[in-house]
Amino acid sequence: MRISAILEQPIQLQGNMANAVVDFSSHTVSIVALVSDQRRNGKPVVGIAFNSIGRFAQSGILRQRMLPRLLRAAPESLLNPEQTAFSPAAVAKIAMTNEKPGGHGDRAGAVAALELATWDLNAKLADEPAWAHIAKTLYPSTSNYPDKLPGVPVYAAGGYYYPTNHNDQLSDELLAYRDQGYTDFKIKIGGASLSEDMQRVNTAARIAGGAQHLAVDANGRFDGATARAYGQELAAAGVRWYEEPGDPLDYGLMAKLATTYSGTLATGENLFSVIDTKNLLQFAGLRPQQDLLQMDPGLSYGLTAYLEMLTAAKTAGFSRKQCIPHGGHLINLHIVTALELGGCESYPGVFQPFGGYSPQCTLTNGRVIPSDAPGFGLEQKTELTAVIAGLLKDAM
Amino acid sequence: MRISAILEQPIQLQGNMANAVVDFSSHTVSIVALVSDQRRNGKPVVGIAFNSIGRFAQSGILRQRMLPRLLRAAPESLLNPEQTAFSPAAVAKIAMTNEKPGGHGDRAGAVAALELATWDLNAKLADEPAWAHIAKTLYPSTSNYPDKLPGVPVYAAGGYYYPTNHNDQLSDELLAYRDQGYTDFKIKIGGASLSEDMQRVNTAARIAGGAQHLAVDANGRFDGATARAYGQELAAAGVRWYEEPGDPLDYGLMAKLATTYSGTLATGENLFSVIDTKNLLQFAGLRPQQDLLQMDPGLSYGLTAYLEMLTAAKTAGFSRKQCIPHGGHLINLHIVTALELGGCESYPGVFQPFGGYSPQCTLTNGRVIPSDAPGFGLEQKTELTAVIAGLLKDAM
Repeated sequence: MRISAILEQPIQLQGNMANAVVDFSSHTVSIVALVSDQRRNGKPVVGIAFNSIGRFAQSGILRQRMLPRLLRAAPESLLNPEQTAFSPAAVAKIAMTNEKPGGHGDRAGAVAALELATWDLNAKLADEPAWAHIAKTLYPSTSNYPDKLPGVPVYAAGGYYYPTNHNDQLSDELLAYRDQGYTDFKIKIGGASLSEDMQRVNTAARIAGGAQHLAVDANGRFDGATARAYGQELAAAGVRWYEEPGDPLDYGLMAKLATTYSGTLATGENLFSVIDTKNLLQFAGLRPQQDLLQMDPGLSYGLTAYLEMLTAAKTAGFSRKQCIPHGGHLINLHIVTALELGGCESYPGVFQPFGGYSPQCTLTNGRVIPSDAPGFGLEQKTELTAVIAGLLKDAM
Repeated sequence: MRISAILEQPIQLQGNMANAVVDFSSHTVSIVALVSDQRRNGKPVVGIAFNSIGRFAQSGILRQRMLPRLLRAAPESLLNPEQTAFSPAAVAKIAMTNEKPGGHGDRAGAVAALELATWDLNAKLADEPAWAHIAKTLYPSTSNYPDKLPGVPVYAAGGYYYPTNHNDQLSDELLAYRDQGYTDFKIKIGGASLSEDMQRVNTAARIAGGAQHLAVDANGRFDGATARAYGQELAAAGVRWYEEPGDPLDYGLMAKLATTYSGTLATGENLFSVIDTKNLLQFAGLRPQQDLLQMDPGLSYGLTAYLEMLTAAKTAGFSRKQCIPHGGHLINLHIVTALELGGCESYPGVFQPFGGYSPQCTLTNGRVIPSDAPGFGLEQKTELTAVIAGLLKDAM
C-alpha cells in the first residue's frame, strides 16, 4: 500500500470580505490530494484536504520541500506500525525532515494539509465518515456511537463592516444567518470607534436574542489600553466571548486583561504549534473552566499536533468543551464531532469554495450534523466539486 | 526613483554538514535583487540580499505573495518621507499587506531578504559600505567613525560530528579555524552521549586556549532534565555560553534552567518576530548583563524589526554587547559593525556560497573588519560572484 502521487493546487478565495486587519480578497488556500495505489470501483482512492483559511496557499513549501520528502520515503514508512493504514503522524513527521525547531508559520499549514489528507484517505479506505474513523482510531474501546448524531454546536462568524448603512446591513446579514438555522453569531469589532462598535454589538445582540448568543472578534488589533477599554463595555453588555483582543502572541497583554475582564476570553487561531499553545496556557492568564481555545488543526501541523494541544489544555485544566477551533469548514466539523469539542465555526456564504458545509449536512437550531459520505465529504460540497475534479483530472 | 524589477532565485547550500537536529545538505536560500531605475556607470543600481541560513529558500511566498504587492505599490510609497532613498520599513510593510498577525515562520525570512536588499540598494546609491550607511541613517548626529574600524569580535561556529575519529577530526577542524585567525569557537553538543560530548568539549577547550573561548550549541534538542544534566557539567567546565538547550520557544524550560545554570545562556536564532522576542525577555528567565540574544535580522523581517528587538532588549536591561546575531555572513557583519553589537558568527568553509566573508574583509586575532565595497559587498565574495551574475543576467 503506497502513495503513488501527491497533487497540490492554490485556489483563490471568493467573496470579498475584510476583518479589522486583513482584506481576504487576495487570499488563497492549498488543496492537496494524496493518490493511493488502492482502488475502489476502478478508481484510485484519494485523500483530500486543504490548509484551512486565512494564511495563504503553501504551494512553494509543499512543492519545493515537503512533497519530495514524502515521495522519496520508503512506502512502508508512511504506514502505521500494523501496516493496515496510512499514518498521519508519519506523514507529518517525514514532511518535516530537516526542518529546524521554532518558526511555526506558513509551513505549519503546509504540513496540516498533508496530514489531514491522510485522515481523509484512511477514512475512505475504511469507507466511513472521517468523524467516525477518527473516533474509532483514537478511542477504539469507547467508539460506540449512536445511530443518529446529536450534532455539534455551530456559530455563524460574520458581522463585517459595510461602507454605508452599517447597522441595517449588519442586521440583514445576521437575520439571513438566523433564517439558515444559526442561533449563535460572531461579529467583528475594532474597525470603528468604541461607541460605533458598541452600537453594532447592541444591534447584533437584539437579533441574536441576547448578548449571550453573540461573540465579538478584534482580530488581534488592540493595544493593552484599548483592549481594556473595550473589555469594560463588552463585559457590561454580556457578550458570549471576546476574541483576540491583542496580538495573538502577546501573552502579557492577555494576562493583564484577564485580571480585569470578567467575561470569557477566546484566542488561539494564530498559534500554530504545540509549544506555542503550551506558552499560551502557561503565560497568558487564561482561566480554566472559563476561557476558550481556538487553535485550528488545518493551520497547525494537522490533527496529530492538535491532539497534543488538547492534552496540554487538559493538563492546564481546560475541558474539550472549551475548545472551539477556528475555520468554518467540513474538515473541522468532522474533527469537532469526533473529539466532542465545544463547537465549530461557520462562515456562511464566504471564503468559498472552502467555507461552510455540504447540502447533505444538516443545520438545525444551532447544531450541525455531518453527512455519511466517506472521509471529510469534501466531494459533496457543491463549490468544491469542480475544484476537486480539476485537481484530479490527470490522476483518475 | 523606483524599483523596476525584483528578481529571486533559490540557491542550494553546499558543504554537507549536520547539527544535532538537521542535515543541511538539502537546504536552500533565496537570493533577491531589487533592480532600481537609478544608473551608475551605465548600469542599474541593484540591491541584493538573502534570507540568512537554516530555514530554506522562500521562492513561493516571495513570488506568489510579496513581489506582486511591491510591484503593484505606488513607486513613491516605497521611498522615505523625504523621497531621497528607498524605505526598508515601507518595503517590509507593503510586503506584509493582508497578512494576519502571528505565525512568524517562513514569511519572516522572505520579508527579511527584501528589507535587507533595500539597505544594500540605499548604501550603493550613497556609494558607501552598508555598515556606514546604516549607522549614518540610524544615528545621523553621532556617525563620526574612525578612519580605520577596530573590527568586531567574531567566533567560528563548527565543531560538527564526524563518523570516525571524532576527537581527532574535531581537533583538526578547530586548528584550521585557529590558523585562519579565529580565537573563539562554538561546537555542537547533543548528537552524542553526555560523556562523549564532554570529551569533545574538553578537546575543543584545549585548542581554544581555555573553555572561556568555547561555546556549545544543542540546537534545541534537550528536554528539561537533559538540559540541566548537561548544564551541570558545562558550568563546571566553564564554557563561554550554552546555546539553545531546549526547544527555542520553550520559555518555561529556559526559565527553570536559568535558576540552576550559573554560566551564560544564549538563544534567539529561532525567534522571528518582535513579539516572540518580547515573550522570551518576559518569560524565559534570561538574566540581563549575563545571557546572550542571537536573533538574526535575515530570518526575522529584516533590520527594521531587529531594531525593535534591540529596543525591547534594552528595556529589559540587556546591552547591545549581549546581542550576537546568528548567521555567519557579510550582511550580519555589516549590521554588527553598524550597531556595535557584541560580535558575529562565522561558519568557515561551510554554508557556501553564503557563509563567511569576502577576501577583502580582514580577520585578525578574532576580529573581523568589513571591506569598503558599497553595500554589503556581496559582489566581492568569490563564491557569490557567479550566483549574482546569474540572478542579474537579464537585468543588466
